[in-house]
Amino acid sequence: MGKPLILVTNDDGVMAPGIRNLVTFMLELGEVVVVAPDKPQSGMGHAVTITIPLRLEKIHVNGNHDVYSCSGTPVDCVKLAVNKVLKRKPDLLVSGINHGANSSISVIYSGTMSAAIEGSMESIPSIGFSLLDHRFDADFSHAREFVQRIASNVIEHGLPKGICLNVNIPAVEQKQIMGIKICRQARGNWEEEFDHRQDPRGKDYYWLTGKFALHENSNETDEWALKNNYVSVVPIQFDFTAHELIPELNKWDFNVK
Amino acid sequence: MGKPLILVTNDDGVMAPGIRNLVTFMLELGEVVVVAPDKPQSGMGHAVTITIPLRLEKIHVNGNHDVYSCSGTPVDCVKLAVNKVLKRKPDLLVSGINHGANSSISVIYSGTMSAAIEGSMESIPSIGFSLLDHRFDADFSHAREFVQRIASNVIEHGLPKGICLNVNIPAVEQKQIMGIKICRQARGNWEEEFDHRQDPRGKDYYWLTGKFALHENSNETDEWALKNNYVSVVPIQFDFTAHELIPELNKWDFNVK
Repeated sequence: MGKPLILVTNDDGVMAPGIRNLVTFMLELGEVVVVAPDKPQSGMGHAVTITIPLRLEKIHVNGNHDVYSCSGTPVDCVKLAVNKVLKRKPDLLVSGINHGANSSISVIYSGTMSAAIEGSMESIPSIGFSLLDHRFDADFSHAREFVQRIASNVIEHGLPKGICLNVNIPAVEQKQIMGIKICRQARGNWEEEFDHRQDPRGKDYYWLTGKFALHENSNETDEWALKNNYVSVVPIQFDFTAHELIPELNKWDFNVK
Repeated sequence: MGKPLILVTNDDGVMAPGIRNLVTFMLELGEVVVVAPDKPQSGMGHAVTITIPLRLEKIHVNGNHDVYSCSGTPVDCVKLAVNKVLKRKPDLLVSGINHGANSSISVIYSGTMSAAIEGSMESIPSIGFSLLDHRFDADFSHAREFVQRIASNVIEHGLPKGICLNVNIPAVEQKQIMGIKICRQARGNWEEEFDHRQDPRGKDYYWLTGKFALHENSNETDEWALKNNYVSVVPIQFDFTAHELIPELNKWDFNVK
């Protein structure tokens, strides 16, 4: 068997330090092709581009792997990579490393994770990586060992169809990291606040801000793991059905107003 | 108790016939406030707007309810409505009626459903409605009875915290509809094809197209229900954890490269 073929994407844009680091880590594990957004796409969730056409351009970054820049969302990048760029299905898809956390409920807003989820829909073993530091000049060096260990495991074991991994990495020195912990998504939500301003013409506008509120203290969650300096790994699936509610809903009377 | 307060939004834009019909149906059940995108936002998934400011404008549609037009995504609309428009938490959030289906895996790409999911995160009983006809001049008249029955049930019974409903309505005459069926999300995916063209300057561009592929034939699914002329109702939750995989992942060796 030849080298594994690894598709790399992200949501911070093709030139973000996070993806440059991820590419460096992946080049030690296999053959790398990058298809990533041409501009930041944070907070895009599982958006796809259907009302405007997509652009895809091969760009030169360095000689040891191909890099394509795409005008669309992270999900668009995965779809275009699989359908138009790669000659065969990749052995692994990695997304990130995101500048900033994608733990707990943030998974639903995350472009990084939407790319990984899209990969799992295409039956590609897929992982989203995020570092708990949103700064452009964040230090990704300690992530190398954990990213490579997790990616190697996924290449070796595969993942069940329709399941990807959501990996978050604390922004601390390597020696402070306690290890890798398999977790579930913590219950929590974003409590929004809108910063209400007026533009120079006197018209109102709003900036979305807010803070994360954790709703539980279980040590089984990604939030607990990260707070205690573990790298969190949450297996993620895309059946949204609340199966346990089906019997209850069947008791409702839909024939009476 | 006064009339229930009903927040109405969608992803096709504030002036789409689907939301105008939904407002008409809801005015018979309670007090209605509309906060919806100022332009179509189909395929936006759970996107939020964080890199540009949001605009929110009260517009005049008719005298019996307030209507706000928002420059952001469906999720932005819900957040702004809850935080800046409504004086109290609404008793019900309804999103739609979408011009086109949001069954099976389409729930993850759907702006209509992302608004309903966001509502459930804010502990608002929430429902997304979609009609299986994407045309602008689709006939929504037969949807009235089913939309009102389901909404009335949710107002009466509530929904567990963190769960909303995904309702899809066949595009057939009312007498052909077999009833309302509680379902689970069918397993399937979109098989993409990209329409590859060149612009007048000779540069490549791509249109995302594709067709839905159903992976199962169970009569428990929304796809089965719709094919057999039932209105499908799927309870939807936002814990993405693949809980069943956690024991298996704990067997992996993360200490060996």
